Amino acid sequence: METIELKYDENGLIPAIIQDIENNEVLMMAYMDKNAFEQTLRTGKTHFWSRSRKQYWLKGESSGHTQEVKEIYYDCDKDTLLIKVIQNIAACHEGYRSCFFTKVDTKTGKPDIFMEKIFDEKKIYK
Amino acid sequence: METIELKYDENGLIPAIIQDIENNEVLMMAYMDKNAFEQTLRTGKTHFWSRSRKQYWLKGESSGHTQEVKEIYYDCDKDTLLIKVIQNIAACHEGYRSCFFTKVDTKTGKPDIFMEKIFDEKKIYK
Repeated sequence: METIELKYDENGLIPAIIQDIENNEVLMMAYMDKNAFEQTLRTGKTHFWSRSRKQYWLKGESSGHTQEVKEIYYDCDKDTLLIKVIQNIAACHEGYRSCFFTKVDTKTGKPDIFMEKIFDEKKIYK
Repeated sequence: METIELKYDENGLIPAIIQDIENNEVLMMAYMDKNAFEQTLRTGKTHFWSRSRKQYWLKGESSGHTQEVKEIYYDCDKDTLLIKVIQNIAACHEGYRSCFFTKVDTKTGKPDIFMEKIFDEKKIYK
C-alpha cells in the first residue's frame, strides 16, 4: 500500500472530519495518528486516538455504532482528513446522530439543542 | 450577545469545519481563537487565526472569496465548530472549490486529484 505523506501535528495527530456519505451530514471530528490511520485503511472501519483517554479507539467498540469507510480525502495542506462513511445508528455518544447537535443563534449567540436523540446513551454505555 | 463556553485548545484555538450550506460539501477546515470567533459572529464573515502566518485572517481578504456565515454549530465536547456558509467562488487558495480535492484510493492508498480548478490561483494571489 502506498504511503501518503500526511502532515501530523506536534503530537503526531491529524484531525479527521467524519461525514455521512448518504446525505453529507458532518457527524463528528476526531484525531488519528499514523497508526490509527493505517488501521482505518486496513480494516475499513474508523480508528482514532483518544486525546483524553490516551488510547486507541475503534469507533463503535463499546456501542456497536461503527463507521464503514467509503471514501477518504485530504486537504491542500495535507493536515486534515475528510472521511465519508456509512454510520451505523449514531456517531455521538450522547445519543444523537451527529455530535453537532447544538446550533448557535447567529444574532444572539444563544445555543440551542435542535436534534432529537435516537438512542438512550445510558443503556448503551454502562 | 451571549458568551458560549467553547473549549479552546492549549494554544487558544478551536478548529472550524466550513461547509457549503447549499450542498453540504465540506470546503475547508481552519482555526479560530476567541477573538476570530467573535469577529465571525459580529461581521457574518469567517475570520480565522493563521497558525503558519501567526496573524488574523478574514477569509477572502486578498482573493475576494469570502464566506457568508449562515449557520453555526458546535459539538458535544464543545471543542469543534461547524459553520455553514455561502461560499463566494471557491474556498481553496489553490484554485479548487474545496480544499479536499485529493481523494485516497481506499484499496491501494494512492492519492488522486479528482476536482477541476475553477480559477487560476496565479492571477488571484500575486
